[in-house]
Formats: sequence, C-alpha cells, structure tokens
Amino acid sequence: MSNVKNNSEQTIIAVDAMGGDNAPREIVLGAAKVTLETSVKVKLVGDENIIREILDNTEYNSDQLEIVHTTQVISNDDHPKEVIRRKTDASMVVAAKLCGQGEAHGLVSAGNTGAFVLSSVKHIPRIKGISKTAIASVYPTQNMQKREDIFSLLLDIGANIHCSTKDLVHFAIMGKLYASDIKGIANPTVGLLNLGKEPHKGGEILSQVYKILTEMENINFIGNIEGNDIMKGKADVVITEGFVGNVVLKTIEGIAETLTHLGKYAFKHRLIWKLGLMALSGGIKQMKKVTDYSEYGGAPLLGFQEIVIKAHGRSKAKAITNAIKVAAKTHRDKVCTKIANEINQIETKFDIH
Amino acid sequence: MSNVKNNSEQTIIAVDAMGGDNAPREIVLGAAKVTLETSVKVKLVGDENIIREILDNTEYNSDQLEIVHTTQVISNDDHPKEVIRRKTDASMVVAAKLCGQGEAHGLVSAGNTGAFVLSSVKHIPRIKGISKTAIASVYPTQNMQKREDIFSLLLDIGANIHCSTKDLVHFAIMGKLYASDIKGIANPTVGLLNLGKEPHKGGEILSQVYKILTEMENINFIGNIEGNDIMKGKADVVITEGFVGNVVLKTIEGIAETLTHLGKYAFKHRLIWKLGLMALSGGIKQMKKVTDYSEYGGAPLLGFQEIVIKAHGRSKAKAITNAIKVAAKTHRDKVCTKIANEINQIETKFDIH
Repeated sequence: MSNVKNNSEQTIIAVDAMGGDNAPREIVLGAAKVTLETSVKVKLVGDENIIREILDNTEYNSDQLEIVHTTQVISNDDHPKEVIRRKTDASMVVAAKLCGQGEAHGLVSAGNTGAFVLSSVKHIPRIKGISKTAIASVYPTQNMQKREDIFSLLLDIGANIHCSTKDLVHFAIMGKLYASDIKGIANPTVGLLNLGKEPHKGGEILSQVYKILTEMENINFIGNIEGNDIMKGKADVVITEGFVGNVVLKTIEGIAETLTHLGKYAFKHRLIWKLGLMALSGGIKQMKKVTDYSEYGGAPLLGFQEIVIKAHGRSKAKAITNAIKVAAKTHRDKVCTKIANEINQIETKFDIH
Repeated sequence: MSNVKNNSEQTIIAVDAMGGDNAPREIVLGAAKVTLETSVKVKLVGDENIIREILDNTEYNSDQLEIVHTTQVISNDDHPKEVIRRKTDASMVVAAKLCGQGEAHGLVSAGNTGAFVLSSVKHIPRIKGISKTAIASVYPTQNMQKREDIFSLLLDIGANIHCSTKDLVHFAIMGKLYASDIKGIANPTVGLLNLGKEPHKGGEILSQVYKILTEMENINFIGNIEGNDIMKGKADVVITEGFVGNVVLKTIEGIAETLTHLGKYAFKHRLIWKLGLMALSGGIKQMKKVTDYSEYGGAPLLGFQEIVIKAHGRSKAKAITNAIKVAAKTHRDKVCTKIANEINQIETKFDIH
C-alpha cells in the first residue's frame, strides 16, 4: 500500500505543528519526545522559526526530526470548505500532501476537525472501493476491571451524516481491523447500533447491514446493540452513521459535565452529594475520558491508504506523542493494507449497494 | 376535538388494567386512588373478576370507576404487529377503541410499547395533517436547582425511525404545546438535535427544518442543539427522528447503569469510589429517573385527537395515578385541540413536504 520514496524501513509520520489549542509548543514537544523514545521519523510541518525556537530548548534526536516550512495556519474558527481552498500553504494541508505524495506513512493533526477531514480527503488517496471515510472514537468502557481490554471503538462520529449499506459494512471492516491492532486481539466483536435487538429493526439499510454482516466469515458480528450497551463495552466495535455517532458521543460528554455541575449544586444544597462527588472524581474523570480521545492516541480517520489520526484539540505533548506512536504502529502493522484487502474480498463476494 | 358521547364535563380516561410488569394490581390501585383524589372517571379495561378482587380490598369511589370486561391480554413478549391482529379483545386494544370511539377522553397503558403504539394508531384518529405520531420522553435536566422548571421533553424516541421535514416541524409544534401545558410556561424553547450549531448542518431535511422553525412566529426556536446540551436542559423541547431519540435515551440510561456498575468495581478496588457512590446515590437515582418517565406521568404519544400516555412498564400505583392525572389535565387544557389548530395554521401558511 505504502509508496513512500524513502526506501529504508524507517516509519515517517507527518505532523501538523500549528493545529490545536496548545499548538505549536505542545505539538513540537510531543514530536521531540517521539524521536527520543522510538525510531520513528517525524516531519514537523509549520513555521520553521517558531518550531526551531521551541526545539532549541528541548531534547530531541535531530536525525529523526525534519521541519517542513509553511507560512499559513488554519484556526478552529475557519470555515473548513472555504479555508481549504484559500490557504493552500497551511500546515495541515501541506502535511496531508506529504502523506498523500508518499513522503510520509501517516498523518497527525490536533487542528480544526472539519478542515482536517477535507484536507485528508483532498490529498490522501482513499482505499479502492471505499466511498466514505469515517472518524472512529476510541472510548473506555465499564469493562475497566479487565485491565487488558477496556476500550471500544465507535464509528463514524461525524465525517458523514448518513450512510449506505455498503458504507456501514465498510465501517465494520475498518473498525474491526483497527481495533484488532490497537487492542491486540484477533477477532474484535462488532455491534450495529440500532433501536432494538431484532434483525429487522431500524429500517431497510440497517436490516440489510445486519444480514450481510451475519453472512460474512471475517467479522465477529454480535448483532444489533442498543444505546445502553455502548458504555458497557458489549461490542469492541460499534458501527453507526455519523449523525448518530456524533450525537451519542456528545451526549456522553454532556453527562460528565452534568455530574460536575450537580456537584456544584450539591455543595449549596446537600453536603453529602458534594462529598460523594469529591470521592468519585476519579470515576467522573474516567467518564470524561470517553471523549478525550487524546489519551488513546486520538481518533483515526479510516478509509485512506495511509493512517490519519485526529488528535484532540486540547492535546498536550503526551497526547501528541501517543498519537504519533499509534500512527507508526498502525503503519508497521499494515492496518490500511489489511483493510484494502478485505474490502477487495467482499467486493468480489457480495453485491452490496 | 373531543367527541365523547357523555355530555357532562367529567373527564373520562380509559386505562389498560392488564398491561405492565405490575399489572393488574398496581394499575387498579393507581386508578382507585385517582377516583378518591380527583373528579376524573376511570374506565378500567381488563378481566372483571380479577379487577373486582383487587378493588374489594381497596378504597375507591365507585361512581367514578367503571370496569370494561375483556378476555385477552398482550404481554411484553408478544410481537406487536402480529398480536394486534390476533388479540382483538385484548385490554389494550379495547381501551384504545373506547378512546377512539369517543367513550373516553384519554388513554393510559403500561403494557407492550410497540403493541400500544399500533393499537393507538389503529383505533384513535390522528390529528388532520399529521402523518406521524411521536413518543415524547419527559426527562429531568441539570436545571434541578430551579425547582419550578427542571423537565425537558425529547421526541420522537422511537415511534418512527426516520422523519420528513414536515414530521419534524409537527414534532416541534406538538412538543412545545405539551411542554407548555405540563411545565406551565407560555413559550417553551425548542431545539433541533444536530451535529453542529450552524444552520446548514445535518443534511437537507434538518437545514430545511431549521429554516422553517426560524420563520415560524409561534415557535420559540433556539436553533440547533448538540448531544451535550440535552442533559443541560438548554431547550425545553428537543426534536429529533425516532432512531436518534431512542439511541440517545438508551445511552443516558446505560450511563446510569455504568455508574452503578463502577460502584461494585470500586468496592473491590477503591474504597474511596465506593464511599463516593454511596454518598452520590441520590444523584445517580436522579439520573436513572431520566428514563423512568413513570415519575412524570409517563411518555405521551402525540399526534392523536385524544391524549395517549404510555406509562413505564415498571409502573407502580403512584405512577399510574400520575399518568391518569396528566392525561386528564391535558384533556381539560385542550392540548390536542391546540395542536390541531396550529398544524392547520402552518398547513395554510407554509408549503412543507
């Protein structure tokens, strides 16, 4: 799959140094750390003077760090479609180009999500047969007593609004191969988010997806799962259209906020609640992590020929280091190639629309 | 709107005595209490012998309680479509018929939700112009420090899967009039659940709904709201298609379960968490109430010419009493007539599909 010109086996990851609430400082520090801890080479894309200034006071391995100078930056307030057309020398756009042109094996940005998706779609080739890429969120479930296996993957969380049968089947394949890699398990379970367990539920598209996934040998499909199964970790991979995934993820995020708010209310009204919330703060932090995917290397954009990772906007150095490491591991483990192979197999076996 | 043959002003509510986990005992006790506390007349539909046996040991006002004998019962395990065709003398079906034929002003059941929706659709006329009825969930928000106004309404939560522009505009009208009545406020705020705040978000149908609701004078439309706004009580009424509403509601329910589960885990692993959860149990109960709509009189099925209330399957007597009282109040306040009038107004003003 990879067509990187550099012939050595070294993994190269392009990093948008200017995107994110804490950019460029935390991004540069995160990248610097990767060069000390791994053999990965980082191409830091952004304003060279600013990046050099941060690096001058930081330890890093200069053999593994290259700066690619750009003059423009995309902010969170920029309108994605318009800015991508206008700022062709933005760090995010240039980083995506590097990855698309084979100058890097993977891409990481903590910048404007919409613009990042569009930059990637524009400059990085999709896997053959895939018409829609998906953003996947890695979230911790209540299976936290089983320390080795507490994460699940929810996709799509907003790269698309609605999906066809084929898109959702592709999400199942992409999700299970990514989850298999990051969780280190052979056959992750896949669940289809629906409003009931029965195969016929949810309308024509979902019942078709149900039927196809049941027939597919390579998918460990456990059937329909409902909203209350998400946090239980009933499935390793939960597939749904982007609209639903987005609303569900933000609902969970909102509940963490509500619990915090209840604490403030309780302080005035019920001391026992306040004490409870203080004691529980560890648990609530755990819930907040659900959407703070920076702790798990960020949210992958799946469906491209190279690995693309969206780090959280609030990412600090540690989260960026993790995101780069995950991108490098995914590349080494050939996850995108495996996705391409399975998509190709079902194209010949199933007639899906 | 009402075409009840009984010409007195007494409100009559038909109650399915046999539906629900605690039926018939708790249903009968709840109905009996209504006759002591209000002037409402209850038509209890079910097995006369069993109902009489319960009533024999209960205080009630016999002038306000009539038993309508039926021989069949629909259970939660029954497949809705099939059972509605087969069991024509089921208590739920007969109660819906009474309401549809003008023998009652409202309908309450704690039985099989799918079968109840189908019974209502089959036997109770819809309001003219409305093609889809909706189930609305009343849920408490984090505004609980403002004691007078802590509830919001989410619809549809599963009567339908997908919706047209027109359906969603109708949901906004039905929701705001019902919320106005039960909350006792003149202009409840209405929010459209979406994956972003901007007017163009969410695809063609949602951006059309956004535009129409903005132009409508009678709706206090606050624009798009996101998943994390739901529990905050940002809008008094949240409108969405049934698939999304159902998944969101069950996700919230699942989180309450997850918190309880975390408590058990914490007991073994972190005593401080256990203590926190014990202290917080009041708060968690509050969250559990989100889906336990029995405490708020049940979930209305809106769009019919008479008020239809689905009480929670686990309803005890108190919840049934509340549901009957809410049905009676909604009838007295002419909520269904108000809905019909506003639907009629927009039909002539707007050309919506």
